[in-house]
Amino acid sequence: MSHPFITVKEVGPRDGLQNETQIVSTEDKVKWIEELADTGLTHIEVSSFVSPKWIPALADAKDVFAMLTRKKGVTYSALVPNEKGLEAALLAGVDEVAVFMSASETHNKKNINKTIQEALVILEQVVQTAKQEKKQVRGYLSTVFGCPYEGEVAVSQVASITESLLQMGVDEVSLGDTIGIAHPLQVKHIMKEMEHVLPKLALHFHNTRGLASANVLAGLEAGVTTFDGAAGGIGGCPYAEGATGNIATEDLVYMLHAMGYETSVDLAKLTEAARFMERTLQKELPSYQLKL
Amino acid sequence: MSHPFITVKEVGPRDGLQNETQIVSTEDKVKWIEELADTGLTHIEVSSFVSPKWIPALADAKDVFAMLTRKKGVTYSALVPNEKGLEAALLAGVDEVAVFMSASETHNKKNINKTIQEALVILEQVVQTAKQEKKQVRGYLSTVFGCPYEGEVAVSQVASITESLLQMGVDEVSLGDTIGIAHPLQVKHIMKEMEHVLPKLALHFHNTRGLASANVLAGLEAGVTTFDGAAGGIGGCPYAEGATGNIATEDLVYMLHAMGYETSVDLAKLTEAARFMERTLQKELPSYQLKL
Repeated sequence: MSHPFITVKEVGPRDGLQNETQIVSTEDKVKWIEELADTGLTHIEVSSFVSPKWIPALADAKDVFAMLTRKKGVTYSALVPNEKGLEAALLAGVDEVAVFMSASETHNKKNINKTIQEALVILEQVVQTAKQEKKQVRGYLSTVFGCPYEGEVAVSQVASITESLLQMGVDEVSLGDTIGIAHPLQVKHIMKEMEHVLPKLALHFHNTRGLASANVLAGLEAGVTTFDGAAGGIGGCPYAEGATGNIATEDLVYMLHAMGYETSVDLAKLTEAARFMERTLQKELPSYQLKL
Repeated sequence: MSHPFITVKEVGPRDGLQNETQIVSTEDKVKWIEELADTGLTHIEVSSFVSPKWIPALADAKDVFAMLTRKKGVTYSALVPNEKGLEAALLAGVDEVAVFMSASETHNKKNINKTIQEALVILEQVVQTAKQEKKQVRGYLSTVFGCPYEGEVAVSQVASITESLLQMGVDEVSLGDTIGIAHPLQVKHIMKEMEHVLPKLALHFHNTRGLASANVLAGLEAGVTTFDGAAGGIGGCPYAEGATGNIATEDLVYMLHAMGYETSVDLAKLTEAARFMERTLQKELPSYQLKL
């Protein structure tokens, strides 16, 4: 069996840093993103154009984009919550925008104060404008594998929201295990249910319960070819203080290469980039590669 | 598909503590082992009757066995290197003895100063005596998935040593990923090659590179029904300072239960037992369940 090429998307500068208590300087963010781009990564989520009141750690999104020396072949994206955020992101010159919502009603309510239906209406506008501006659009669907308020989320609901996102023009939907509760059989089950749109899906795992690598394996076995990671495993979990964050991109890449999958990434360089963030945050990060 | 029952074997008091730099008092060891037995675990490796010069942390093996209040239904085992160790273990009243050797020639040489052939001869004597004494015998085969000196180890060599161990009367062979280098495809490949003796195999993973849960999944998919763990994930790795040790038993049990497998273990009690060792060692352990 020959292995498909796996696309690894780096979300550390956004999903990672937004959940760190320390605020990293704009200069260090830019330096980090440039270092990450030098590892061969082709997709880097740079920041978020969400209100600085919500995410103070990413209040400098505009400045990060302005200061960044971009590398050819790398897609630099940013999270946008609405038309206003999109406008700012377009002005900053993003290559791709990422919209987001939850698969569970309560998490949508608590996180963005909207029902699922209201969220879909707003995202549709944003996606339409982004598409008119010829931007790629990624959609994050969170709490796919479990919601901190509702517990299990119906697969039918996940499938139906994903369908809606794809129909409005979203190019790829990243299914997020927001609270790190996914397990491999569930991953396989959900992927099976969504087999018809598999090439448009990415998996986004948090290692809260130590199952990220098992869930990646389940995803690979189901045929998924795009996975998210955060260099260093930064980020933590807003619902479990002290818990581990995103799967460390370097641990993900190590696993893929060990299994014979090709990626665009140079593992040694990526580990060095993770080390830079470990020095910057001045704390031990959850990454395994950093401990070898 | 209905799930088979999975046997979880606790090796923390031996494999975990032997690799910790701190020496735990005999009283705390006994307390811990009794707490572990109360979680529903049916197999606990209590200590090692290797020379205290080699493993000072386990020099009190005899006292631990003497002080221990045993629980019915629990198998208390100990590691023995040779006839002399076996004698001491029998005197201490072990239920099961565990013999050990490496799958790679160089690791045998460096670890026990014997060739593979010499090791097999010595183990055969030990196993014979243990069997005469009506004891269960477990065989640890280390460096199955990679050797710190030789790199990859031939599957044929692993299969042939395993065959020899089983033929001399070893009841179960635990295949050890001593340096935490195994990856899921390799696990599946090796298990496929050894399919004919699968019911007599256990898998023993270290989480050095964050792949333990993925490797457990690969083992489950291959049909393995016995897995080792060390509560708290204690132990570290003698070949990579600062690296993570055995898969934490509570993370293993969490994973199994999440996937619908039955075990004999009460996860909440097990996590409490792991917490006892975290307090005793006074450091953060690699366990994920302990951080929730």
